[in-house]
Formats: sequence, structure tokens, C-alpha cells
Amino acid sequence: MSFENYFNEIVTNVNKKIEEYIKGDIKDLYDASFYLFSAGGKRLRPLILVASSDLLGGEKERAYLAGAAVEVLHTFTLIHDDIMDQDTTRRGMPTVHVKWGLPMAILAGDLLHAKAFQLLNDAFKGMDSERITKAFSIFTSSIIIISEGQALDMQFENRKYVSEEEYLDMIRRKTAMLFSTSSSLGGLIAGGSEKDIEALSQYGLNLGISFQIVDDILGLTADEKELGKPLYSDIREGKRTILVIKALKEASEEERKIIDKTLGNRNATKEELSTCAEIIKKYSLEYAYNLADQYRNKALEALQSISWKNDEAGKALKYLAEFTVKRRK
Amino acid sequence: MSFENYFNEIVTNVNKKIEEYIKGDIKDLYDASFYLFSAGGKRLRPLILVASSDLLGGEKERAYLAGAAVEVLHTFTLIHDDIMDQDTTRRGMPTVHVKWGLPMAILAGDLLHAKAFQLLNDAFKGMDSERITKAFSIFTSSIIIISEGQALDMQFENRKYVSEEEYLDMIRRKTAMLFSTSSSLGGLIAGGSEKDIEALSQYGLNLGISFQIVDDILGLTADEKELGKPLYSDIREGKRTILVIKALKEASEEERKIIDKTLGNRNATKEELSTCAEIIKKYSLEYAYNLADQYRNKALEALQSISWKNDEAGKALKYLAEFTVKRRK
Repeated sequence: MSFENYFNEIVTNVNKKIEEYIKGDIKDLYDASFYLFSAGGKRLRPLILVASSDLLGGEKERAYLAGAAVEVLHTFTLIHDDIMDQDTTRRGMPTVHVKWGLPMAILAGDLLHAKAFQLLNDAFKGMDSERITKAFSIFTSSIIIISEGQALDMQFENRKYVSEEEYLDMIRRKTAMLFSTSSSLGGLIAGGSEKDIEALSQYGLNLGISFQIVDDILGLTADEKELGKPLYSDIREGKRTILVIKALKEASEEERKIIDKTLGNRNATKEELSTCAEIIKKYSLEYAYNLADQYRNKALEALQSISWKNDEAGKALKYLAEFTVKRRK
Repeated sequence: MSFENYFNEIVTNVNKKIEEYIKGDIKDLYDASFYLFSAGGKRLRPLILVASSDLLGGEKERAYLAGAAVEVLHTFTLIHDDIMDQDTTRRGMPTVHVKWGLPMAILAGDLLHAKAFQLLNDAFKGMDSERITKAFSIFTSSIIIISEGQALDMQFENRKYVSEEEYLDMIRRKTAMLFSTSSSLGGLIAGGSEKDIEALSQYGLNLGISFQIVDDILGLTADEKELGKPLYSDIREGKRTILVIKALKEASEEERKIIDKTLGNRNATKEELSTCAEIIKKYSLEYAYNLADQYRNKALEALQSISWKNDEAGKALKYLAEFTVKRRK
């Protein structure tokens, strides 16, 4: 079964909202803010949000606005993270701070951060006050937790040892939280029961963990063009991914030395990075894919516990959980 | 009449909220985020917000939360602006990015941005949905406009000519907007009429314009210790303040050359900066103070158009408008 039409309609409508809201009279600022949206992107979070709303019979228009809100929020974090991580390429293009300079990149992120709230406010306008407050509570908590996750990620770069548990806690905050927020907000828009919203939250959270594990895998295995950013940048930046953690546990003394020497060395050559990546992959690839599968299964279980009102949406959400693990970029 | 007790009670309670909300388990991140609050600051925006709420009989607890929201929002903009402007000192201390590094400063600003929304959400919790939506609409618009103002401010640094009208438009966005937001939100919390909230908005807006004009004056005239940051940094950064604009209009050919040469020259010596400042002041000081007086008067007029329910709060708001012009730091 193909969901192309279903997904295309969501992406088209969410993109329309983004175009409508990210617009203003200060040209530079709005060009820099809109830049990454025009570079593609999977729109995975809006897809999850709108399909979650559809699953429980929510209003399309509200779901599109909230879908745009999570995508705009996500893009704000990408712009600021690229500065913090000194990344120079994203989606096959120079990052915002490379193209527009540091001050404008900070400002564009801040603008998108506020715009995300504007979109959310409009998505829930006219609903009962309890639901509005709940929506803002979910959204703000999410951003706070994402910031904490980014702080942990940066701290880990300077640490000798990071446990698998710590890694999972970090990606739960940094990545999975926004997926969980997306599915929860979809359920909230549709007026879902507390139980259903909690199940949707679990679907998003587990899908998000699976997504990040696969992201870490693809950083070592993907086709660089498809990936849209340099291969091995995680190694260069010293990111303590699940693959690195597992490999450091299993590798020989000699191999461990190579990993230690290469990890976080911003001057490492492509060859050194590749040698290091091969060692890491040897010990961790199967393990990481198995872990991603486990979290995907948890996501699917949570989804099954809900009484679907819309079969296409439910199947689309299943497909998205499968896609998370199977994707090549 | 002294408002010391009245103001102290507000500041104490708002500070308590800030301490309560800017707290979490990632030590570095929260230390960097809380840092500027512990360095003092006038808490002018919370004072305006709470007094505006008091003026129309609002609930104290809600006003304190919203007061903390605008102060936290203001602090987020300070942290990011200091990065963009390459400022190294604020409130007599190293700026956040100097003390904690660029990545952590960006992240601390982002965290505070989200925390401001969390405080606002809690301030309006349980109120009718229309008012909640209105509050978020005011707040988000405000941040969007502030970002636009900061973009204009940066653009102006690279422009040869900026008109007084353009300057006023810029400070209306960059500075006055948050004052207007503070007084409006205070009125909204108290359930004020549309007319009263609009009058409060005008009070805040005009006070804010007056505040920024005086800020620009103090940047050339204040005692450096009292100011808490280097004198003449506006000249070094090439800021097109009202004083610069007026002086460039009135100065002799020779003097204009000195201003042009010094403005935006980050390597200018203290002596060159001082010579330039003297020329600027000669032509613009009286003019700028007159302009600040005019906007203060507009703020007072707007205040007078409201039927006060609380005389102490009304007089305190009058005092704050006067203080804006009279202050030395």
C-alpha cells in the first residue's frame, strides 16, 4: 500500500502554512529564516502530527497549523545546532551561519522559535482553555527538554566514558521528545482521551529513539550525497553515539586506541575517519539496528493499543515507524 | 512619595518565580541561563507589568508569573544580542558567551526563550480561552517584532545614512515593543477593557521609546562603573543612535569626517572614541533629551486616560515613566 498521495497532501498543506507565516518586511532576516525549508527535508514531524490527528478524527486545518509549528520549531533547532556543532553543510547546502553569518543565523533561529509558538497558538485558537494550556505545556516542556538534550550531547563530546543508558537518555531528550510532542499534539487536536494521547506520545517517543539510532548509523554508512552532509562528521565532532559506545566496549586494545585518537579530532583526514568508522561499524552495526528495531516495535505496540477512527492514518503511522528504520537518508 | 516598598515586593516575588523556573538537572546549562539574573538588573519590565495589573485590580500571583515571563524573555534577548554585537561586558560582569562559551550561550538563550513561554502559560492557566490566546498572540508578536528590530539595528551598522524616522521604527521594534507587551499583559491579566489595554499598550510603547533614547544618551554620558559596560561601545559597534543621526546632520564637514572614521571602527582607541563622543554630544544631547521627554509625556497621557482602580499602582507607573528619563544607568 502506498501512502504517497496521503503524505503529499499533508506536506503540501504544511508547506503552505510555513510559507504564509515565515514572511515579513526585513528581507535578510526572512530569507535566512526560510532558507532551510526550501532545501527539502522529510517533514517527518508534521506527517506524524497530522496522521495522529487524523487517526482520532481531528480537524485538518488545525493539524496543518500545528504540523507547521513542529517543523518550524525543528528547523530553529537545526540552525542553532549547526552553529554549536560547527557544521557547514546540511541538506546538501551550506548551513545558515555559513551562508548568512553567525549573527543572522542566531536571529533567524530565534525568529523561527517565536513563529512556532505563533503557529501553535493559531492551531488551538477557539478550543477550550484546558486544551490550549495543555498544548502549550507540551510544547514548552518539549523545547526545554530538547535544550537539555543538546547540552548533554555537547557535554558527552568532552567525556571519556558515556554509558548506553546515558546515551539513550540524551537522545530521548534531544531527538525523541519532538516526535513524541508531534504525535501527542495530533491526539490533543483531535480531542483524544488521556489514554490515547499517552499511547500516541509513546508511539512518537519510541519512533524518535529508533530514528536517532538509525541517524547515528547513517552517519557512518550512508551515501554522502543522499545524506546531504559530510559522512563521519559525528566522529570528527566526537559524538558519543550508540555505535561508538558499543564499539569502545567490544574493540581490541589497539582498535580502541585508534577510536580514541580519531574521535573529536577536527583535523582527522578522510582516511583516518574511514579507518575509525570501519572499526566502529564492525562491532556495532548489527547491535544498533537490533536496538532500533526494538524501539520501532515498541512504537508499533503503542499504536496498536489505540482504537483507530481512520484506517489510512493508522497504516500511515505504521509505515512511518517502519520507514524510520529502513530509510537510507 | 517613595515606591521602594511597592517595587521591592514586586521584585522579590518575581525573582522567586525566576529562581523556581530556571532550575534543572543539567548544571552547566542552568548555571549559564541563571547567570545574568544574579548580576542585578532593574526588573523594569516586570515592575511595569505587575503595576499595570494592579492598576486594574489583577491577581498578584498571575502578575508575578507574567512579570517573570517578560524578564526571562528580556534576558534571553540580552544573551543573544551580546553574541551578535560582540559585547564582552554586561552588568559589570563578563557576558554569557565570554564566560560560558558560544554554544552554551546560544543554548542558554534558547532555554530562557522557552521558559518565558512556560511562565506565561502558567500565568494565564484557568482563564477563559480567548484571553489565553490573546496573551500568546501579544507575546509571540512581540518576540517576532523584537527580532526584526535587532535585524534592522544590525543592518543600520552597515549603512551610510539612517533617518530619524528609521531609527524610531527600529527602537519601537527592538526595545519599546517589550515594554508595550509588559503593560498590555498586565492589563489583560486584570481583565481590563480593550480601551484600557490599548491605553496601557501606548503607555508602555512610549515609555519604551523614551527608555531607548535615554539608553543611547547614557552610552555616551554615563559613569562607566554605573553603566556596567564599556562607555562608547555604541560608537565602536557603529550603532546609528538618534544622537549619531542628529550630529551627522548638524556637524561641520570636518567633524562629520571624524564621526564617519570612528563609527564602527572596532579598533578605535579610547581617545578617538572620546573625541567622537564629544562632537556627537555637542549637537545632539539636548535634542535627544527633548525627544525622550516628548515620548515620556505621551506615556503619561495614555496613563491618565485610564480609570485607575489602585492609586499606588497608578502613581508608581507615573514614577517609572519619569525615572526612565531621569535615570543615570
